[in-house]
Amino acid sequence: MGFSYSYIVRFRDTDAAGVVYFANILNICHEAYESSLAASDIDIKEFFTKPIVAFPIVHADVDFFRPIFCGDILIIKMIAKKLGNDKFEINYEIFAQNMLASKANTKHVCIDASTRKRTDLPGYIISWLDNLG
Amino acid sequence: MGFSYSYIVRFRDTDAAGVVYFANILNICHEAYESSLAASDIDIKEFFTKPIVAFPIVHADVDFFRPIFCGDILIIKMIAKKLGNDKFEINYEIFAQNMLASKANTKHVCIDASTRKRTDLPGYIISWLDNLG
Amino acid sequence: MGFSYSYIVRFRDTDAAGVVYFANILNICHEAYESSLAASDIDIKEFFTKPIVAFPIVHADVDFFRPIFCGDILIIKMIAKKLGNDKFEINYEIFAQNMLASKANTKHVCIDASTRKRTDLPGYIISWLDNLG
Amino acid sequence: MGFSYSYIVRFRDTDAAGVVYFANILNICHEAYESSLAASDIDIKEFFTKPIVAFPIVHADVDFFRPIFCGDILIIKMIAKKLGNDKFEINYEIFAQNMLASKANTKHVCIDASTRKRTDLPGYIISWLDNLG
Repeated sequence: MGFSYSYIVRFRDTDAAGVVYFANILNICHEAYESSLAASDIDIKEFFTKPIVAFPIVHADVDFFRPIFCGDILIIKMIAKKLGNDKFEINYEIFAQNMLASKANTKHVCIDASTRKRTDLPGYIISWLDNLG
Repeated sequence: MGFSYSYIVRFRDTDAAGVVYFANILNICHEAYESSLAASDIDIKEFFTKPIVAFPIVHADVDFFRPIFCGDILIIKMIAKKLGNDKFEINYEIFAQNMLASKANTKHVCIDASTRKRTDLPGYIISWLDNLG
Repeated sequence: MGFSYSYIVRFRDTDAAGVVYFANILNICHEAYESSLAASDIDIKEFFTKPIVAFPIVHADVDFFRPIFCGDILIIKMIAKKLGNDKFEINYEIFAQNMLASKANTKHVCIDASTRKRTDLPGYIISWLDNLG
Repeated sequence: MGFSYSYIVRFRDTDAAGVVYFANILNICHEAYESSLAASDIDIKEFFTKPIVAFPIVHADVDFFRPIFCGDILIIKMIAKKLGNDKFEINYEIFAQNMLASKANTKHVCIDASTRKRTDLPGYIISWLDNLG
């Protein structure tokens, strides 16, 4: 069913061109991802600080259709999908004033945080994927 | 009466020491400031993008009492005060788990955005200061 | 023949996982782009602050092959290519210790900065593209 | 003797007001600090990633005298001073076109990175302080 997240564009997100700095859209997407994890009862502090398994991003892409300004209220719609035993992807659509302003995709692999070797997705991520599918 | 703002610490706020990167606390304070302006019916997009008058920060200081982690839910308590006809300051207290984790202060001057010369605080900022005092 | 840029990874580039935060690789690529413009005698301040024509990014993608750490000395190799009268792309390869750690691509369109309508690439960008091809 | 560092202002340092975003000046100061540590033969990766002792910032302040623009070439002059057995401070002066544009101060304590308890400054920091005094 996916996950929906609302974000107000902040001054620190902008650049001297007067709009959101391109790479910061990926920060906003990542914030939506963090919020979706918390909504699945995952402890964000444990997940991102000294975890046993981690989910580093191996690919990201982003397309920009309209400029986004400080103060804009964005709606980020997320869908996530399993890509194998140790990999998943997230698709993001970012709307401003009901118009698609940007879309993005991130691909994540599951690794053992101490050895950095690939490992199977744990149960709590499978559940999160079920919610976000 | 002041203004109170809640913020969830994001992964992008952290650094390789596993806690919030020091300068990012000022971003979080600025976000509380933006939210307080919006709560006073100030148009954030106009205020920060091509404004007629602007309020650049001429001083900032921040003290850190406890480390802040990804996922921490912060409460930022703000009080603002007029410092003359063309200047104001904001005091911020940042709480994590009901303990004071950090405090900060920013001083802002009012300038004509095209000439960058000092000018008197406009009525909407006086009203905002009245609410935040 | 392309352009080569060296970058030392900074503490602010990292996150609580102990490595460079994914979106910050795009900041490092953009810094290489800025440096290549300066090397073609383009005035960076004019180019990015109140320009007549601007070159917003309409697409970016990035792949990550190896974690990058604070203090790592990166070599960024750039090649740029015209994609039509009003568009160009840049390919970036990011090396750490002589190994490919990441690669990225950005696509830029040329717009009139006041109307935001598409316009032809100006001569100084054609020259820059000739140097970076 | 102090330490001097040169920095070219990047697009990502700016905000929609067309100048450097206030908190980013502290990033630039921190970059000068990192460079001074490297100049004292300190391994930056070890220092900032999983260190035995760490030097978190407990206070920062910054004053802004002139706007700083994308492309500006800054000179950062640093002086550091021991403040006791487990504490030091750094004073930064930031010049643009030979004029003082900003100054900043950071205070750091020395802690055991695993227990987060205060501990004496190690020899390599004493040597660095001797160079930066």
